[in-house]
Amino acid sequence: MKIEQLCVKRLYGDVAGATTRGHKIAIKGGYIYQTFQGGYTLTPLGWSVVHKIENIIRKEMDTVEGQEILMPVVCSADLWRETGRYDSMDSVIAKFKGSSGADYLICPTHEEVVTDYARSVLTSYRQLPFMLYQIQTKFRNELRVRAGLIRTREFIMKDGYSFHETQGDLEKYYKRCFDAYYRLFKRCGLKNVTDVLSNTGDMGGKLAHEFQLINEMGEDTLYICDCGFRANKELEEHASDITKCPKCGKELQKIRGIEIGNIFQLGKKYTESMHMTYTDANGEEKTPIMGCYGIGVTRVMAAIMEESADENGPIWNMETAPFAVEVIGLSDKEGKTLPLAEKIYNDLHANGIEVLLDNRDNRAGEKFADADLIAAPIRLIVSTKNLEQNQIEIKYRVNDYDSTTLPNAIDINNYLEIIQDLIKKLSHN
Amino acid sequence: MKIEQLCVKRLYGDVAGATTRGHKIAIKGGYIYQTFQGGYTLTPLGWSVVHKIENIIRKEMDTVEGQEILMPVVCSADLWRETGRYDSMDSVIAKFKGSSGADYLICPTHEEVVTDYARSVLTSYRQLPFMLYQIQTKFRNELRVRAGLIRTREFIMKDGYSFHETQGDLEKYYKRCFDAYYRLFKRCGLKNVTDVLSNTGDMGGKLAHEFQLINEMGEDTLYICDCGFRANKELEEHASDITKCPKCGKELQKIRGIEIGNIFQLGKKYTESMHMTYTDANGEEKTPIMGCYGIGVTRVMAAIMEESADENGPIWNMETAPFAVEVIGLSDKEGKTLPLAEKIYNDLHANGIEVLLDNRDNRAGEKFADADLIAAPIRLIVSTKNLEQNQIEIKYRVNDYDSTTLPNAIDINNYLEIIQDLIKKLSHN
Repeated sequence: MKIEQLCVKRLYGDVAGATTRGHKIAIKGGYIYQTFQGGYTLTPLGWSVVHKIENIIRKEMDTVEGQEILMPVVCSADLWRETGRYDSMDSVIAKFKGSSGADYLICPTHEEVVTDYARSVLTSYRQLPFMLYQIQTKFRNELRVRAGLIRTREFIMKDGYSFHETQGDLEKYYKRCFDAYYRLFKRCGLKNVTDVLSNTGDMGGKLAHEFQLINEMGEDTLYICDCGFRANKELEEHASDITKCPKCGKELQKIRGIEIGNIFQLGKKYTESMHMTYTDANGEEKTPIMGCYGIGVTRVMAAIMEESADENGPIWNMETAPFAVEVIGLSDKEGKTLPLAEKIYNDLHANGIEVLLDNRDNRAGEKFADADLIAAPIRLIVSTKNLEQNQIEIKYRVNDYDSTTLPNAIDINNYLEIIQDLIKKLSHN
Repeated sequence: MKIEQLCVKRLYGDVAGATTRGHKIAIKGGYIYQTFQGGYTLTPLGWSVVHKIENIIRKEMDTVEGQEILMPVVCSADLWRETGRYDSMDSVIAKFKGSSGADYLICPTHEEVVTDYARSVLTSYRQLPFMLYQIQTKFRNELRVRAGLIRTREFIMKDGYSFHETQGDLEKYYKRCFDAYYRLFKRCGLKNVTDVLSNTGDMGGKLAHEFQLINEMGEDTLYICDCGFRANKELEEHASDITKCPKCGKELQKIRGIEIGNIFQLGKKYTESMHMTYTDANGEEKTPIMGCYGIGVTRVMAAIMEESADENGPIWNMETAPFAVEVIGLSDKEGKTLPLAEKIYNDLHANGIEVLLDNRDNRAGEKFADADLIAAPIRLIVSTKNLEQNQIEIKYRVNDYDSTTLPNAIDINNYLEIIQDLIKKLSHN
């Protein structure tokens, strides 16, 4: 794509109303656009990143035999009345009447809907365990929105739900998902991720963990102890009074985190109230045990921008960057550089590389500032400077890789293979 | 995936409540599950097909330089009041109040939202033309739902919106999208597709076409003339009286169609009422001209099942089938067939082929019936029958290819390459 065609508005200077570094960068780079308070349009750049995060999640869900489905965004009230949550979660649920007068809601979560589907499928223990997940839009009537995609009313979630015969089987599977979460957050480029014990809240069940990105702009308070104990402050009632670790008695440290995922051992809360049963090996009717596994997909993008950015823009890794390569042509008097930049762009594009071309008639400084906001990990600069040696300058915007070990110029007759190699190298983080 | 793990319920015999062949097959094969009246869960099979249709659409949108974005499902009423449609489309819009008392709706279409985004980006004629599109959930308070995914309240749409300096430029681009639509429907495996002139309805503008799948279960009446004139009956007022072609005066034929896409030359209806402007080459303020381009994504899956199916199940092409290959092991006394079937399955899976294994302890007839419902284009049957000659039987479920020209058995020592070749062959339809 050519940069002048990219339908994105970049801002320069200070951004009014943005309170955090990541939020500022999201606005300045034109990744998100506020359609209403708490509802954002993902622009071509923002959607590209989110879509890549979605595909990283899909790959990791494959490793735990997750089966992707898509449930409706809307639901009839009936299903939610079966568990009592139509009333108990009233404050966050958007409700409306259908044309026939029936009650509907926009699902803030999907335990009822997935249990209704799963009970229609499950008959025998031979089918267990299984895990269903979806990547989909949710809406919550949040009173408080915050920091762009960090806390919104409408957001994209990956929500997964597993069903098991025994608590032991759930625990084994829960551990596999726990490990998959660490892998996928790492692949997204998030660094300072930790798990903490959390309370189960509206979800029910007994054991739950949150995945938190440790970051000073986070709004959750985490209690951490050297002995390995880690919990969200809400875990205990009157948590503000707790200063000692409940496990070893040492002084607890307080740090801040951004919640990016959560997993719950739900037990039978939903399967029992919704009468989901199967026949076990002895021919007896049993109720399955359930786990659930959430990831705030749009919040993951926001979290990356809070953690991996400098004053000039975000730092994506190769897996999440909207473009792998940006080619910048800096015009010369002889008229050689721009056609060469375009030729390189065409070659890379024809070889399936996601590449952006900036051959605009702008000052070099403006082009570099835009390149920092778009943040392709590999940047080729076609200028007279290196052209005398038949070379193109190459720069990197990475933070998982020691870029001093990478070439800072490449031959104009042999760039394709080198760039393909570099992309491969930078892809394994 | 192993068939016993596939979280899908198949039905045998007659399906209550399903009125059309495609709807019956969708239920019998377990592609869709009704979560509420007019709202369906796409099961692992159904989602797999829809996701593939989405990716076919993405590839064709690339050919017309479409830029993918994602707008919110919900919208504040303010934007819709700018064009007056908050009131004029009241009967189909789901409306609700937010926690702060503000008015929201679930968007039945996104002209207002995209124009709001586009006006925030556009300043100069140099940025024009551009096209933004999304693939996303919509909700309409339809009074009447019909035939599974054919007419629902909640559905997935691809909606694209283009912006132009001149009517001539819009017309040129409109023609390119028109051609892209024919290509993408063909790639989805739809055969009997035609374009018809249609009226512009709630959308506004002057010229519009629908893409219709000609099919006896369609609910639209199309008027067709030998001279090439084709129109939806709603095009003219009092259409029921029309019997003569307005172009040549010949008798019009009536046929039925399922609307799968529509494209509109919107003119300035939205850009004018929402005050979207840019500066042209002479420094003057101008209003861009708009086009829009819709596809009913979930309806495309339903339409394929109406058109391409036999009494046993759907007939997907290689691009839309949930699995490219199904391996069926029919157990023998020597215990050779099932391990061989599993080995083949593992090999194909390890080589990135989407493959399903049926090694269940069921009768062959049951397995074949299930295979017809899942409808992998290539079916390998591992049984004693061909094993004596060191061969595996191979069958096809295709209708775009003369399968008598394809091998009906393959060597057990050399199957991988042959199957990879067959997949390639069957992929170009």
